[in-house]
Amino acid sequence: MPDIALREGERIDDLQVAGYRIIQHPGRFRFGTDAVLLQNFARLPRRAYAVDLGTGTGILPILLCARGKDLRFEAVELQGPCADMARRSVALNGLSDRVRVHEMDLKDAPERLGRGAFDAVLCNPPYGRRGGVLHNPSQELALARHEIATDLQTVVRSAALLLKNGGRFFLIHQADRLPEIARLLHEQGAPLKRLRLVYTAPGKRALLALCEAVKQAGEGCEVLPPLFLKDETGGTSEELARIYAGERTV
Amino acid sequence: MPDIALREGERIDDLQVAGYRIIQHPGRFRFGTDAVLLQNFARLPRRAYAVDLGTGTGILPILLCARGKDLRFEAVELQGPCADMARRSVALNGLSDRVRVHEMDLKDAPERLGRGAFDAVLCNPPYGRRGGVLHNPSQELALARHEIATDLQTVVRSAALLLKNGGRFFLIHQADRLPEIARLLHEQGAPLKRLRLVYTAPGKRALLALCEAVKQAGEGCEVLPPLFLKDETGGTSEELARIYAGERTV
Repeated sequence: MPDIALREGERIDDLQVAGYRIIQHPGRFRFGTDAVLLQNFARLPRRAYAVDLGTGTGILPILLCARGKDLRFEAVELQGPCADMARRSVALNGLSDRVRVHEMDLKDAPERLGRGAFDAVLCNPPYGRRGGVLHNPSQELALARHEIATDLQTVVRSAALLLKNGGRFFLIHQADRLPEIARLLHEQGAPLKRLRLVYTAPGKRALLALCEAVKQAGEGCEVLPPLFLKDETGGTSEELARIYAGERTV
Repeated sequence: MPDIALREGERIDDLQVAGYRIIQHPGRFRFGTDAVLLQNFARLPRRAYAVDLGTGTGILPILLCARGKDLRFEAVELQGPCADMARRSVALNGLSDRVRVHEMDLKDAPERLGRGAFDAVLCNPPYGRRGGVLHNPSQELALARHEIATDLQTVVRSAALLLKNGGRFFLIHQADRLPEIARLLHEQGAPLKRLRLVYTAPGKRALLALCEAVKQAGEGCEVLPPLFLKDETGGTSEELARIYAGERTV
């Protein structure tokens, strides 16, 4: 069993799914609702070999392995301390033979992990345009939340290069960048084929877009029913509660 | 007063808005819900000078004039008998000085009506890819519903050429073509800035996309709350009823 000692400020949280747990550092690095939404949206074939670009805490591979399919992951994380934390979370769940964590810039992933080698790629990337938002004073948070170390074009390019023909790329990003996302996916030869918009509540504008692109597919995109995070009363929506409980809703 | 005699098979319908009426030919040509949705979605500045590409019955200019703003329209229609019918509907509502109907291919509209001359362009175009669907045996219906006489790229190109910088293009189209629409708009220099997806009912896939593009705008797209045509019980949704009653809901 690898070293799964906690570093200062870290804690272990129960994922409430199949007994899986995760290490988080509340002040520096923790996963968000967007990662939970993306794992619900993603459709991975059985025995898929997949890459998670910018894995952060490692939440996506861990949750997807918890679904029970025979999946394997290469999880890429730029920040050393975060990659180390994710690696320990993987070990904590006995997944070290299924999830390998790499300290790596995602732009290097195709060359280092293999072009055209993967059935699926996932990415819950940093949001916001470079220079377009105020940066968090914490450097790790800034790297994760903003496009300092990477940008959307690089994410899409890496994903498209990693995929086999017919392979699927699952991305969650800000809804207001949907046209740009669709265009970049098309330019990289993996058009948007399935889309779900995420709204904070009924009557509000969309916040996030869940996107599935398929390498070398033709045009034509299925637009799923909207996902509301809150209901009319302002409470957690029934669907979000089901997603957090590990139920697949799409 | 111009000749507003009805031709065989035509009838006059009350639009239930400000006393406005329209001539339709039930077997050959009538407007659909999509036109009503587009006029609700469109935001035209006061005293706007606008083009309707493929006006059909003339429903869009007539409904938009019924809203009471001092709008002027050039309404383009390829099919002579349909243009004639639209022209008589315009006259029927006393709008001949505000709406001119042209029998014209929309691809010729920029040269004939004026490049960069318009505040707004609207289009409720034929749906479906050329050759991709079964064609209706009625030639007029086939021309209106399918991309025989035109295609999406031509529509977007004409709209972008007609607009002033900062002018707005309002389009309703099939939701499954959203990525292609976003890409074509970007290519023609009028990026998608505002989007609303139309669903037949909660829990169903999106059917249509209401799109607003702005000539020479930057990237970034507002995604409005979803519009449902039916409610959970299968009846007309409250919002659709309000739209048909002439109320603006966005």
